[in-house]
Amino acid sequence: MTDLLPFVADLPLVDHHCHGVVTRDVPRADFEAMLTEADAPSPLGTSLFDSLIGLAVRARCAPVLDLPKHASAEAYLQRRAELGAAEVARRFLRGTGTTDFLLDGGFLPDALTTTPEFAGLAGARAHDVVRLEQVAEAVIGGSTAAGFAAAFAGELEKRAATAVGLKSIAAYRAGLELAGERPSPSEVEAAAGRWLAAGGTRLADEVLHRHLVFTGLDLGLPVQFHVGYGDADVDLHRCDPLLLTGLLRATRERGVPILLLHNYPFHRNAAYLAQVFEHVFVDAGLITHNAGFRRRPCWPSFLEIAPFGKVLFSTDAFGLAELYHLGTALFRQGLSDFLRAALDADALSEVDAVRMCALVGHENAQRIYRLEHV
Amino acid sequence: MTDLLPFVADLPLVDHHCHGVVTRDVPRADFEAMLTEADAPSPLGTSLFDSLIGLAVRARCAPVLDLPKHASAEAYLQRRAELGAAEVARRFLRGTGTTDFLLDGGFLPDALTTTPEFAGLAGARAHDVVRLEQVAEAVIGGSTAAGFAAAFAGELEKRAATAVGLKSIAAYRAGLELAGERPSPSEVEAAAGRWLAAGGTRLADEVLHRHLVFTGLDLGLPVQFHVGYGDADVDLHRCDPLLLTGLLRATRERGVPILLLHNYPFHRNAAYLAQVFEHVFVDAGLITHNAGFRRRPCWPSFLEIAPFGKVLFSTDAFGLAELYHLGTALFRQGLSDFLRAALDADALSEVDAVRMCALVGHENAQRIYRLEHV
Amino acid sequence: MTDLLPFVADLPLVDHHCHGVVTRDVPRADFEAMLTEADAPSPLGTSLFDSLIGLAVRARCAPVLDLPKHASAEAYLQRRAELGAAEVARRFLRGTGTTDFLLDGGFLPDALTTTPEFAGLAGARAHDVVRLEQVAEAVIGGSTAAGFAAAFAGELEKRAATAVGLKSIAAYRAGLELAGERPSPSEVEAAAGRWLAAGGTRLADEVLHRHLVFTGLDLGLPVQFHVGYGDADVDLHRCDPLLLTGLLRATRERGVPILLLHNYPFHRNAAYLAQVFEHVFVDAGLITHNAGFRRRPCWPSFLEIAPFGKVLFSTDAFGLAELYHLGTALFRQGLSDFLRAALDADALSEVDAVRMCALVGHENAQRIYRLEHV
Repeated sequence: MTDLLPFVADLPLVDHHCHGVVTRDVPRADFEAMLTEADAPSPLGTSLFDSLIGLAVRARCAPVLDLPKHASAEAYLQRRAELGAAEVARRFLRGTGTTDFLLDGGFLPDALTTTPEFAGLAGARAHDVVRLEQVAEAVIGGSTAAGFAAAFAGELEKRAATAVGLKSIAAYRAGLELAGERPSPSEVEAAAGRWLAAGGTRLADEVLHRHLVFTGLDLGLPVQFHVGYGDADVDLHRCDPLLLTGLLRATRERGVPILLLHNYPFHRNAAYLAQVFEHVFVDAGLITHNAGFRRRPCWPSFLEIAPFGKVLFSTDAFGLAELYHLGTALFRQGLSDFLRAALDADALSEVDAVRMCALVGHENAQRIYRLEHV
Repeated sequence: MTDLLPFVADLPLVDHHCHGVVTRDVPRADFEAMLTEADAPSPLGTSLFDSLIGLAVRARCAPVLDLPKHASAEAYLQRRAELGAAEVARRFLRGTGTTDFLLDGGFLPDALTTTPEFAGLAGARAHDVVRLEQVAEAVIGGSTAAGFAAAFAGELEKRAATAVGLKSIAAYRAGLELAGERPSPSEVEAAAGRWLAAGGTRLADEVLHRHLVFTGLDLGLPVQFHVGYGDADVDLHRCDPLLLTGLLRATRERGVPILLLHNYPFHRNAAYLAQVFEHVFVDAGLITHNAGFRRRPCWPSFLEIAPFGKVLFSTDAFGLAELYHLGTALFRQGLSDFLRAALDADALSEVDAVRMCALVGHENAQRIYRLEHV
Repeated sequence: MTDLLPFVADLPLVDHHCHGVVTRDVPRADFEAMLTEADAPSPLGTSLFDSLIGLAVRARCAPVLDLPKHASAEAYLQRRAELGAAEVARRFLRGTGTTDFLLDGGFLPDALTTTPEFAGLAGARAHDVVRLEQVAEAVIGGSTAAGFAAAFAGELEKRAATAVGLKSIAAYRAGLELAGERPSPSEVEAAAGRWLAAGGTRLADEVLHRHLVFTGLDLGLPVQFHVGYGDADVDLHRCDPLLLTGLLRATRERGVPILLLHNYPFHRNAAYLAQVFEHVFVDAGLITHNAGFRRRPCWPSFLEIAPFGKVLFSTDAFGLAELYHLGTALFRQGLSDFLRAALDADALSEVDAVRMCALVGHENAQRIYRLEHV
């Protein structure tokens, strides 16, 4: 990382979408399972360390644990166990240069740090993002079809009181083809009735996901959407952000930000939405660390059409402390390479380069999530 | 631009798809609104000058107006106002090295130069491309359902007499999923009846868009299609050029060229169609200037599979004289960089490089639009 | 090719998907028709030699036939005729460094070498891949609706006895949206009845394509799918590999490899499937030679998320001996460039680079197709 532009190396970051870290030690199989979106190494393939992210762990993370670059996977995991999960987390998180982490605590919360624990490990501020579906799934059991909307709104308002944003995982459940209008109360009641009749467990209903989003927007809090790349539960062809066009058109007058997360491999489609809809913002989390040293495609593709004021930084790191480190370091590397090439071509001035970095690195997130008011 | 290959710097260009320029002076908000496909700067974002195209205006356009590179947006707009819209237009248009501009006059014609005015400002030839939907919308009011087909054909033939091509904006209205056969007269009559019953204003009917295209092809004039990227009115997921496959299959025996415009972010899909359908041609207008110094992705991606004989140059510039300049200068830069890398690798000879430039720069357009006969 | 990393230049290759070569001499029109996926040069375009692959033939193939680099198309074809198809085939095939060719003999078999002829020309091992639809089309004529499933299974088992894999061309016929469950015997019988009633010639029925795949998987042999880019018969928007998500989810427990071929321009979608489904593998055949010196996009895009253990090499060469040479040489070039950049950045060690090459070049294919047991 000695070749970073100084103002990129020192750029304070707001990681506007990530998750907690695991606090227990992880054996190799679990480590590989958390490294990518695969559930586990394939019996027909080879180790998941044989991947760009695996190589990146060995190249960029090993030195943080006092090992030589390119240490073997075995040596790496042994040293990791030796140091213990807490020390590993501290080293990686504190080296990121991140001032604020926005944590989605809605997935496997029992296995991960709480928000205060995370802040302690990282030596930084940590904020909550509330997963809409988790709230709905918490209230449906004690509710009726007719009472669901009020019960959800009440519980969401309570949980959101100390949060900086909300998140929809409609992409994982019903896909992103959400209709371009708020569902009526009777539609919501009917859908809640169907859900209750089906057992009221895992929410997967287009009407209800949509209702959750509109209810969230009522609170004026930014709403994040999982978009694109995820694990094998995703039907990726139903996760193209363009499927949200109708809903974005219907919500653009509200002045509430909508954030399209990850977006891979639909990042150009997402960038289009960020250009033409005033309330849409994008990031390139998740792919940044997965793609390892193949780090260049996402940032420049976004910037082809998305203005700098509409692009945010995130890692989408989950579980493994290495992923915060890699997501951050590879983001800095990509941003630096991109700007260095532009500066070399005299395509922008250094003053502008510094300003663009501040926007993407933290200013856009501070403005959108009103972090100065927290 | 000192690093351009000489035969690229001097390449005469035919801009086979663009629009007129605004003749009035434009305040900052209007300038930003015309800079990208966003309607206006976002109250949640930052200035649209904070974008690759904004940086490109300050880097590449400022010197044309006697300012230093990277002049501020304020200084730039002040100098622009000082010179006046006509002088600004003359400077930018005359510096493009374009011999022929093909103008689609169908969008906001009252705010823009006419074709002769444009030719005068540019000191070049300017030709008309007739927008099919505009003709249909002009005749439907005085027509009946049964009389629409004949009225449209008559008016189109009249307007096309002095035009070099036609254009469909089905993408903006009904999407590109047009069926693979000519609609029957009774289908056209029924659709015209529905349109009249709905008020006969803005055309948005799959049957009628398709009918317009077939009627246009009857005249033997090349038909352009808006494809992909556009403003917030577009449902971009309905603008993938692959949706035209059936229609392209149904029209390939006619020997009339069909031109897929812009194509971003579907340029690889468009290039596939240009390879396998003999009458299909492609360009990368619009994104070329939007992407600013991120100029490389489009040309090389096209050329992965589209032969050089099927790729044309356009800017799709609209309104701001800067966009003709940027679209042209960034095209030359991208073409030069692409060919220089290939020449350095001895992947083609300079003789071939010169010939390929001539094809893409002007020969393909001259052949397709029969410009030597105009 | 002097700039290849030594361990890439010497890497033994398994070409896990290609076809036979034509044994007759080919006049120019036929040569052009076989060069790309276009049926023929377009009367509206220019020669198909005016393309990246045409330039690659003149740059990289001419010297193999004792001509200077960049020899004209005329000189090239004259020399080719002079040497004769057999000598041309020997020169190109023997220079590839390929130890094993897996031949799909299902398309235009009468015009091409047989598998033993191919092995003789290439001086290498050649193995059969059986096209599922060809077997079905061979048995349907002598079968009944009720008897089709058994007749197909019997004939497939017989033909597969000496094969190393199977192949589905559902993409070309019904598209890739195959349902996520095995069709029932009665569904198969009904579909076979419909097919017989329609004449029993060209198979194009979602139920039957799906039935063929499941019957193939029963044999435990790897099943290849044509995905993406092909000739004008393809409806490319129905060939996105993501449409196979349901079928992949339904077959992941079987432990039988599924190989997504070509994948252009959907290679990122395919790479996603290879990451999250344990039995899915990918390659970038066909585009590698089509894209000529524009050789970099495919490999790195795959590796963004597909682990090295899930990526295979193929050419998808068909007919022209040049295509084996180009597919192989351009693959080596792209792999070498990719790894050299990574080695220069110290992003991986040379030991690892060598190992990754072995996986992609031959080990994955040897493991998947069990070539050591043949």
